[in-house]
Parts: sequence; C-alpha cells; structure tokens
Amino acid sequence: MKPAQRIYLQTTPLSKALQRWREFLKGISLIDEELIKVTNALDRITSRPVFARMSSPFFTASAMDGFAVRFQDTFGASEVSPLRLKLGEQAVEVSTGEPLPKGFNAVIMVEDTHQEGDCIVIHQPVTPYQNVRTVGEDIVQTELILPERHKIRPVDIAAMLAGGNSEVWVRRKPLVSIIPTGSEVIDPWEKPEVGSVLDYNSFMLGNMIVQWGGVFHRLSPVADDMVILRETIMRAVEDSDVVAVIAGSSAGKKDLTPDVVAALGEIIVHGVSMKPGKPVLLGRVKDKPVIGVPGYPVSAYIVFELFCKPLISHLLGLQPEEPETIKARMSRPVTSPLGQTEFLRVKVGRVDDKFIATPVGRGAGALMTIQRADGIIQIPEESEGIGSESEVNVVLLRGVREIDNTVVCIGSHDNTLDLLANYLRRRYPAFSLSSAHVGSMGGIMAIKRREAHIGGTHLFDEETEEYNIPFIKRLLKDVSLRLINLHYRQQGLIVKKGNPKGIKGIEDLRREDVVFVNRQRGSGTRLLTDKVLREAGISSSEVNGYEREEFTHMGVASKVASGAADVGMGILTAARALDLDFIPVTRERYDLIFPEYSLRLDSVKAVLDIITNDRDFRKAVESLGGYDTNDMGKVMYEQ
Amino acid sequence: MKPAQRIYLQTTPLSKALQRWREFLKGISLIDEELIKVTNALDRITSRPVFARMSSPFFTASAMDGFAVRFQDTFGASEVSPLRLKLGEQAVEVSTGEPLPKGFNAVIMVEDTHQEGDCIVIHQPVTPYQNVRTVGEDIVQTELILPERHKIRPVDIAAMLAGGNSEVWVRRKPLVSIIPTGSEVIDPWEKPEVGSVLDYNSFMLGNMIVQWGGVFHRLSPVADDMVILRETIMRAVEDSDVVAVIAGSSAGKKDLTPDVVAALGEIIVHGVSMKPGKPVLLGRVKDKPVIGVPGYPVSAYIVFELFCKPLISHLLGLQPEEPETIKARMSRPVTSPLGQTEFLRVKVGRVDDKFIATPVGRGAGALMTIQRADGIIQIPEESEGIGSESEVNVVLLRGVREIDNTVVCIGSHDNTLDLLANYLRRRYPAFSLSSAHVGSMGGIMAIKRREAHIGGTHLFDEETEEYNIPFIKRLLKDVSLRLINLHYRQQGLIVKKGNPKGIKGIEDLRREDVVFVNRQRGSGTRLLTDKVLREAGISSSEVNGYEREEFTHMGVASKVASGAADVGMGILTAARALDLDFIPVTRERYDLIFPEYSLRLDSVKAVLDIITNDRDFRKAVESLGGYDTNDMGKVMYEQ
Repeated sequence: MKPAQRIYLQTTPLSKALQRWREFLKGISLIDEELIKVTNALDRITSRPVFARMSSPFFTASAMDGFAVRFQDTFGASEVSPLRLKLGEQAVEVSTGEPLPKGFNAVIMVEDTHQEGDCIVIHQPVTPYQNVRTVGEDIVQTELILPERHKIRPVDIAAMLAGGNSEVWVRRKPLVSIIPTGSEVIDPWEKPEVGSVLDYNSFMLGNMIVQWGGVFHRLSPVADDMVILRETIMRAVEDSDVVAVIAGSSAGKKDLTPDVVAALGEIIVHGVSMKPGKPVLLGRVKDKPVIGVPGYPVSAYIVFELFCKPLISHLLGLQPEEPETIKARMSRPVTSPLGQTEFLRVKVGRVDDKFIATPVGRGAGALMTIQRADGIIQIPEESEGIGSESEVNVVLLRGVREIDNTVVCIGSHDNTLDLLANYLRRRYPAFSLSSAHVGSMGGIMAIKRREAHIGGTHLFDEETEEYNIPFIKRLLKDVSLRLINLHYRQQGLIVKKGNPKGIKGIEDLRREDVVFVNRQRGSGTRLLTDKVLREAGISSSEVNGYEREEFTHMGVASKVASGAADVGMGILTAARALDLDFIPVTRERYDLIFPEYSLRLDSVKAVLDIITNDRDFRKAVESLGGYDTNDMGKVMYEQ
Repeated sequence: MKPAQRIYLQTTPLSKALQRWREFLKGISLIDEELIKVTNALDRITSRPVFARMSSPFFTASAMDGFAVRFQDTFGASEVSPLRLKLGEQAVEVSTGEPLPKGFNAVIMVEDTHQEGDCIVIHQPVTPYQNVRTVGEDIVQTELILPERHKIRPVDIAAMLAGGNSEVWVRRKPLVSIIPTGSEVIDPWEKPEVGSVLDYNSFMLGNMIVQWGGVFHRLSPVADDMVILRETIMRAVEDSDVVAVIAGSSAGKKDLTPDVVAALGEIIVHGVSMKPGKPVLLGRVKDKPVIGVPGYPVSAYIVFELFCKPLISHLLGLQPEEPETIKARMSRPVTSPLGQTEFLRVKVGRVDDKFIATPVGRGAGALMTIQRADGIIQIPEESEGIGSESEVNVVLLRGVREIDNTVVCIGSHDNTLDLLANYLRRRYPAFSLSSAHVGSMGGIMAIKRREAHIGGTHLFDEETEEYNIPFIKRLLKDVSLRLINLHYRQQGLIVKKGNPKGIKGIEDLRREDVVFVNRQRGSGTRLLTDKVLREAGISSSEVNGYEREEFTHMGVASKVASGAADVGMGILTAARALDLDFIPVTRERYDLIFPEYSLRLDSVKAVLDIITNDRDFRKAVESLGGYDTNDMGKVMYEQ
C-alpha cells in the first residue's frame, strides 16, 4: 500500500555525458554500404568516392552547324584567295552535337561558307579542332566526381550518370527501432479512454530520424513487464541498428529500462543534469546503441536532438549539420536552477531590426512549447538565469527568413486571432502570424518595449468609460500608432453545460460549493472580473479559486469543461467551442494597436489588409458567434 | 544538302518573361487536396487548418506520486494540528499520470504525508487542483494546431496526434512528366555508341522536383518526330500536372516543341535574353503548364530553377523558399554581353574573413560547372560585366557552413589532389577540399591576393636550378608561409597506346603530321614545355597545336586518347589513367604553399595532418604510379 521509496537519480553533467557518448560512438562502426541505382540516390550518402568511368562528351562532336574539314586543307584561304573544298571528300556537313566524321579535325561554321556545285567555298583557314567539342571537355574519365561521405544532390545524379556510373555505393539508412512503453500507452489513432496515454512521441522521434537520413520501425506499445520488455529489446537489437525505448528510463518503480539494459549490456550514462530530459539512459546492448528516452514529449525531443542526431550522423559517416543560430535579446529575465543545463523554448520576433526572444512555457509535458517555439536557448549549468535585455544565442527551429516574415501579435487572447493567422497564410503564403497571450496590459508594454508588431487590447477605463485609448495615452505617449478595431465581443460567466450548480450571476462566486477559475493579472478580463466583483461588493478572498490563473479564454473554458472549475469569466466563443453554457455580463471592444514602426512592414500591411478588406474573414469571425464586426478595420484613434 | 536557314529566336527580357509567367500562374489553381494519415505526413503541405479535436491531456491526472484528496477536507491542517484522512474514503493513492479519481480535486505529494493505520497524516492544506494536470494544459480542444499551407515537421505530427487528429488534409504532390527528346538520346544506363547522347538531364530535373515537394514521371526518350512528340505531349498533359520537354525548344530544324505547343495550346514565352537558358519555351496545353527546357544541362538547371520551382510552389500554395545568399568579392573581372542576363557559376571560398568568388567556366554544356559550383551570380542585362574586387550577391548552392569548412587549393593540377580531397573527407568529415586548376603561377598569385588557403606549384627556376622557392621569394616576399613537399613526379610526353606515330622525343613536335596539345600559360608544365623546346632549338610556330591550351593533365591526356591530338606534355599518372603511353622527360618537385593566414584554420591543419602523418594516403599516392613520396610533408622552405 505504501508507495515504494523513490530512488533519486544520480545525474551526470551534460558536457560529461556528451563526452562519454562521443567516446562510445568512436567505437561504433559506420553502417554497412549498399550498391544502389544512381537514379534512386537522392539524399543518400556516398560510402566510396565516385570516379568517372567514361569521359563526357565521350566522342568528338561538332559544336556548330557547318562542315567538318581537315585544318591542313584550309591553309592559305583568305578573302582575296578563297579555297574550294570538295563535298564528301574534303568537307562533310555536320549538325551541332553530331560526331566528327573519321579523318576530320575541325569544323567551319555554315555562316562562313557558301556552296558552289559540289564544293563549299571558304575565305579563312581553321585551326586544329576549331568548333569541335572534344572528349572530356566536361568530365574526364577517372576524375573524381564525388568524394565519399557526400550527400547526393540532383546535379550529382546527373554528373554520375554523365560519367558512366549507373550505380553508386552508399551507406545503408540506419534503422532505429522505437519501443513505446507503459501499460497505459495506446496507439495514437485509437479512441482513448480516461487513463490512457496516446503514443505520439514515437512518430515525432521516428520522423526526426527520417530527417537525419535514417528510417524507423515503431513497435506496438509494450506493457510495464520486465520479461516482455527484455525480450522486446533483445529482438529489436537483433533487427535494427539503434534501439530507442520511450519512457521508463527514470528511477521509479515502473522504470524498468535501466535494469533491462544493465542486464543485457552496459549503461553508459543514466541521468543527466539537464532540464528537460534528466532521466535519459544511454547504453549498449550487443554493440548496438540503446537510448532510453524520457516519456515527456519535450524531454524526448531534446534528448533525441542531443544524443540520437550525432549517432545517426556518425553511422552515416557525416558531421551532424549544425543548426542555424542567431543572437537575440531576451524580452524578460529568466531564472534557471544552478547545476542544470536548461533548454528554454522561445518565440523570436524581429522588431525594429533586432531579434527579441520570449519564453513560451517550460513544462516538459507541454509539447506545444516546442511546436510553437521558434528556437531554443541553452542556459548553462553554472548560470542561474538570463537577465532581461541580455543577448543570447538562439538555436533556431524555423528558418530566419520565416521568422522575419512573422508578425508578432502580443496581448489579449481572442479566438479570432487563430482565424486571422490562417487567413493571413491563405492570402499571403509568405507571412505568418504568431500570437502570444499575455493580456491587454502585456500587449501595451510589449509595444512600448518594441517587442511586438501588433498589440491586442480591451482595457476599460472606469473614469472615462472608454476602451483602450486612455491607457494608450498614458502608457504609450511617445509612440506613433493607429488603434484599429477588430470587433466587439460578449464577455460573461462560462459554466458547465446545463449549469448544474445553478449559477445565475456574479453573486454566486461567493458560494462555498462553487470553484472559480481566474485570468492572469494584466489581462482585460481580469480587470473586468475585479470590476464586477467590486460592484457586487465581493472581496477576492471570498472567491474559491480566485488565485488560479489561466492565460487564455480557452484555458478557462477548458477548466470548466473538465470539471476543474465550475465557473470562469470569458468570451462567448470559448464557451461555444467547448459546448458550455454562458451567462452574459458585458459587451466589450477589442482593438489592435498598430505602431508606426511596424506599419512599414509588408507583413503587417498584409494583416491590416485582411482586417480592413477581407469579407470572407469578417464572415468567418461572425460565424464563431458572439462577435460584432461592424467597426472591424475602423481607425478608433491615432497619435 | 544545304542546311536549312536558321531562324533566330526573338528573345524576351528575363524580367518580362518572369512577370508573364507569374501572371499565368495566377490563373492556375492550386493542386487538389487529399486526406492522408498524419503518421505519413512528414514534409507534406496542409491544405486546411488543423484544429484540435480533443484536449491534451484529455483527462484530469495526478502530476505527482501521492494521494488524491478533496481540498475542502484539508482545511486547517498545520504542523501543530495535523489532520488524518481515511484511506479509500478521503485519500486515494495515485501515481504520476494516473487519472484523478472521481470526486477528488487535489493531490498531496507522498513526501508530505505519512501513514498511520488506515489513514494518512497531513500537516498542511492543499489548494483546489494543486499537483493536478488539468485538461487542456497542453492543447485545448478547438485551438489551431497548424494553419493551412504549412510544411509538416516531426513535432507537428506529434501535435496533431495529441490533438486527436489521425488524418490530415494536404496538397497532393504535383506530378511532372519529363519527356526527353532527340533521336540520338538514350537512357543513361545504356551502353552508349558514338553519336548517342545520355539522358541524364531528366534525372537531375526530376530530383529537383522531388526536393521542391513534387514527384516526377520520366518518359522514355522520344525521337525527333512531330507526330510522336505531339501524341506524347497530349498524353502527358492528361496524365500529369506539369509537362517538361527536354531539348527541341529552340528555333532550329530539329526543334519541334514550339510548333507542337502552339498547335495544342498557347505559347506564353519563347526565348529569353539569358545565358545560359535562352531557348526556353513556356506554354500551356489544356490549362496545364508545359515547359520546353533547353538540352544543355546548365541551361536546363537554370531554366528549372527560374520557372519550374515557383510553379511547383504555387501548386502547393507555398511561397518558394528563398535561397541563401551571401556577399562576395570577385577574384577577377568578368565581362558579360549587354542585353542578356547571365548566370555565372562561381566557386566561393572564405579566406581571411572575406568571401571570394571565382568563375568556374561558362559553357552551357558543362554540367560540372554547376556540380562543382558553390553559387551563382546573376549579371543583369544592362551590365557589361563585373569588375575585379567588386562586391556581388551570390546565390548559394551549398550551405555557408560547408563553404566555411572548405579548403580552397588553387594552382597546378595534379591527380593526387582528388585523392587528398577524398582522404580529407574520410578522416575529417566536416571538411572539404576544393581545387581550382589555374597553373602554378596562378596559385602563387592567388596566395598573394589571399584568395586561396593552399597553393600548388612546381615552377623550375632555370637560373638557380631550384623549384618554387625563387618564385616565392620574388612574388610573395611579404607573405609568411611554409612550403611543404607533396611529392616528386614524372613529366613526359603522353602519346597514344602503342605510339602509332613513333614519337621518340621533343624533336618529333616539329613534324607536320604530329598534332600537339599544350597547357595554359602560367602552368609549370607550360614552362617545362617551353624550356625543353628552347633547349631543342624548336620555335613554337613550328609546333602544330601549340596554341591549343588545356588546363589539366587529364585534359591533355584526354585529347590524346580521343585522337584530338597526338602528343602532349603531362604527368605519368594522367597517361596511366587513360591507358596511354609515356615518354619520360623529367622528374619534378611538386610543393604546396601554406600561408600563415590559413594555417590558423582547423580545416587547413587537417589537410596538413593528412600530408604529414597519413600512411594510407601516402600509399594511395604511390599506387597511382610515377610519384616519389619520400619528402611528403617535409618543410622545404619557410619565411
């Protein structure tokens, strides 16, 4: 009944773990080679140098339309004393590319001749092999076409074929067996039940291997059973070049991989001082590398990049491709535990000729922090974090041009921003919209710090009873900008379908049996909540769950849908999206701030174009429900 | 008998041709979509936005090992007044990831409890949903996972699966039919006869399409026959999305494509003022794009990059990926015809923190000028060329990191440089050796101008009877360097197998029936030739073919092998490689100049390491024949 004592993992510093892994790889042979057709060789890696087996051209040919001649016969020809050459004997008609007839050694262009009976008349001599494409002009037999360890491109395929090679020796593609483990793990296309875990990791890791030049074989999920796991690993080691076991590599009671690997072979590293990815296991069974990959998706991703990528490159005889890196400024300070290398996922935007990096969340289980990230920052072990304004190296997950073409929208969350992102891509495929949800006030501050191209805001000023403008006047007084309406929307209380707790209004938040979920400080919705609570004379300490903050309307709705809360303040669309009930509280104005510094950019102009002119977009917003788009695109204020 | 009058092509300026093509593409619909399994979707392009069908996590789970409790039951617990919770009723054991049992709303960590009989004892209260992973923490149902027109990455596959999507709508891969034409054209794996032309172009172009996200179907070569070509194009238009016809797009008598396209559909552009690629044909048959691609490989490559790449991107709904571009300095001036856009292939080397671009040859038929190039420079129509030292934009064909890791060796040609390139790649996969053969003197001047990392030289000074050093002292007096021996080698007269002309020595170059092939000015071998001719009292005007210059030993040997010349001066290895006879003339010293500025680089150190320490490399050089490696790696001179 009592849980087993947890064995805490002794961790190795990352640099040391990488070094041990490199040492280990030195002892692993390159993968064997295979002879394949050159026409199928795109992106394969040569295992031997490729030499030309024949020259190209491989015969002497005319380079012009004209007549093949012997240069000796043309000596003495001039304007004043033209020469006549007998057709068929001294001159033979040839077209470009045709073989030079035997016994001839030059070509005179048709333009430089005229015909008289069975002769041509020439007015100048030719030099040996003039107007002739000689053997080997492009490729000389025996010359090196490709060195070994070369990744074959389309033009290399042509060069090998031109040089008489129709087959080529290449490295076999390394085969990685991927074994998902855990009794609760199911195939990701199955209908899940409460408690089951979808194995999407295998397909992420497998496709990373494909990108690195390998292939993968994903096994069906294996239950937490020592005997089955042992047999599965043994068979996989026989069948493939590398084995990756997902989950079960830590030191808990269900973590069987370390014991199995230790029994079958040798553990090289177990546990690395890194975050995420700490419970990684690196081992060897029968001289095949075995990687124990943590089950959290971000951990799995980072571990694979650090350890599996160099392994695949090593097997193929390649240097791993270095990722693209840029320098960026941190938009806010980040603390990081001493003694651990942290891999921080960031969004990157180019604003005002500088790259700005903003963290996107740190949970190892949050796949979307990798999926949405533009890059990763490595915070070294010996560092306690990164100061705001610090310059950092960002390893990019997207191309720098893509980042350049991304409009960064920071501020209040609204469901229409997803729609806007998709319409932008549809109308202007070069551009993307990336939105970060930090609340209306966060959006205004991001514009002030020039970290965003667009700010989304719906802040109500109680004194002037006006939206947004008083805040802009106060906080952005030095910034030239246009404030443009996106829409008006319904805010209200989101409650479960059928409203089982019978919530009627803000008064019910006082009830002991009602759990509320709040929005984060600085969001317009939080301000709204505080205003209506104040008006109702309710103190925040009376509200169960007032401290639990979500960053988006969908986050609030999702908490209500799952039963984690009974009620939250949010927009009608969020309630509709998850089929929840809604009690209206107010109608509010949602505007976008377009600072002058970003209105210069074509990408931002494209966003503005959609908001101002795109009827389809407007209709799509209306069909979400709860939106009034009458003022969409209207300039509400300018300074 | 008289060749048909050539119709000269009326050409369109490139900018105008591109504009017409873009206009035409606007009228072509995106390719249709298909529903595929997410697990097979790597690198495919979304045709619709992907929204989450379920949240992730989709059930409320414990985030810790511990006990599920009701937060209301924990009120009042403290160190001084601990609370007891009945197991099974008020507290239920849970592991990380397990669903939170129904009716419970928080988890207390196992470390914060102890067990007493059938109760656990707690010393602090918990807040609602503490230590609980709530629904939608990672992905909220209905949120946008991917916009349309997005290229799917491994992490996107995971995100779609996690969000409950096991299928995804993507664009079908555009299918391009490639039709090689010409009665002389054969499959590239066939044994060619004199006059036949290998169709390697199709596989270059086809694989370019694969890289852009399409697929190709290559048809068998089609003879020069109007009816067959017409039928083939008609069928291809039915069967595929794009048709590319190779060769026959110009205006000569064998050029049938323009007439066929005009008859079946419409010609959009025929003939563009560009070099290479002038005879390109852009047309439409039954609303399918048809591209007439010139038969010369470099022309075909450039035309495909310019016109087919944006077409494939358009069909997929993507913006074409912009190629990587760098700024470089031209190592020498280049003239270019006014009124034509020229695409100049260049080698690029980073020497001394600057990129230096050097043209690699300009023939449209020279495939290797693309295969060996690092990049392409576009010389605009209105320009007559590029001055030396000018800064130019280079569109890269290889990554900038690869270029950074390339050792540029300029100077005298020697077959061992191919071997050295391959050994460098084998021992140090990160590095490449690129050699340009411009003769010994060219190598010395390249070092002087800091355009090369290494210079290869075998210049004999008649006055001092010494190799290389007198030239270095005179021409490189300000450059710190080490001169290191590569080998001694045999130079002599290369003659046909069996020596049919009975050539015995240098005296025979006077004979009227003997055609000589020379090396270019500035090469050590040219100096040697001139020296031995002078010693024999032979004037250059007495030697047939003295003016015909080749740039490499293999070039000379190749001319002899093909019968384009009877004799040439060159190294024993070149004669052996093509199975020719050899009459020794002298033994000469071949050294490599390593300037101090390049010896700092790891890549250059790696080359030096192989020359100095690699016994396998030494053996491989010796086995080529004609080389003495006793001094290989020895410092011959230092300054």
